[in-house]
Amino acid sequence: MSNLVESFVSREEIFDGRILKVVKDTVTLPNGEMATREMCLHVGGVCVLPLLDDGRVIMEHQYRYPHGRIFFEIPAGKLNYKGEDPLSAGMRELREETGAVAERYTFLGELASTPALIDEKIYMYLAEGITFGERRLDEDEFLDVELVPLSELYEMVMRGEIKDAKTQLAILKTANLRRDLLNL
Amino acid sequence: MSNLVESFVSREEIFDGRILKVVKDTVTLPNGEMATREMCLHVGGVCVLPLLDDGRVIMEHQYRYPHGRIFFEIPAGKLNYKGEDPLSAGMRELREETGAVAERYTFLGELASTPALIDEKIYMYLAEGITFGERRLDEDEFLDVELVPLSELYEMVMRGEIKDAKTQLAILKTANLRRDLLNL
Repeated sequence: MSNLVESFVSREEIFDGRILKVVKDTVTLPNGEMATREMCLHVGGVCVLPLLDDGRVIMEHQYRYPHGRIFFEIPAGKLNYKGEDPLSAGMRELREETGAVAERYTFLGELASTPALIDEKIYMYLAEGITFGERRLDEDEFLDVELVPLSELYEMVMRGEIKDAKTQLAILKTANLRRDLLNL
Repeated sequence: MSNLVESFVSREEIFDGRILKVVKDTVTLPNGEMATREMCLHVGGVCVLPLLDDGRVIMEHQYRYPHGRIFFEIPAGKLNYKGEDPLSAGMRELREETGAVAERYTFLGELASTPALIDEKIYMYLAEGITFGERRLDEDEFLDVELVPLSELYEMVMRGEIKDAKTQLAILKTANLRRDLLNL
């Protein structure tokens, strides 16, 4: 499928911010024409679905400024640097945001959030065997935690009531692995 | 949960490109401190899972420049303008990219691709009763089409072999609606 590949020609650096880097590349298209590709570069992220032994999930309410409203999400965060081990990052984010520590992690795959615009990859994990320690949020981080049964979250996703892509995906994947926890 | 809300103070326009607009806002945090929020503004998008009567799905191989490789995705595209009817946009993108026309559309919900960074919302549809007309790609758009059984796509998602978030989600949601098509 080399008939689909676009080749790098040159790069214009647009913005180098705290979390976003924006570039505009000139590329050669498969038909030989030139085009520009605007994109964001991102360090990548991790998300964790923490499943308690009783079938409830640790969920978070968090304000998402670009959407101007509170989202209902699983714990998640950025990698500290490109190439950081995503499982270590997931354990850290889970602990910081919820105080939870897990005995067992299952990799649920990765997702490309919006591959036409940003190189962000998010690694997804299911965490089980949860015990609780102490929360320690980043200083500019504010969120509320709530415990919700997986069966209820599954219904919410299927009714379209949860918007965040990584949260929807991790819930549906976990639901497929743990059909015993659903009320079907 | 007003204890979570961040309030707009001022905006710095960073970049106003062809598909991306980037801004840096100053906000007031729930604790009264100031912070900056870098984000991308996007018109929004739509994706369509076209399910043939024989249980196969129209899939696309498309080069995604930010990731530097070919992705395996369902048909999708940007809205033409903010507030465009997403179903009309979905019908257009499906027709342009694959030549397919559908008799029935089922709304599968929306997704926020990466809500900390971008205000993009993607509307998801299941399309059924497919017949084929003529493809008409955008002039800088290159993609190959392949027909793959839903049951196989479901297994690929569960094994982590499909990366695109909207594609994974639309496949898992459709699989939950059409368990009769899976080999479980």
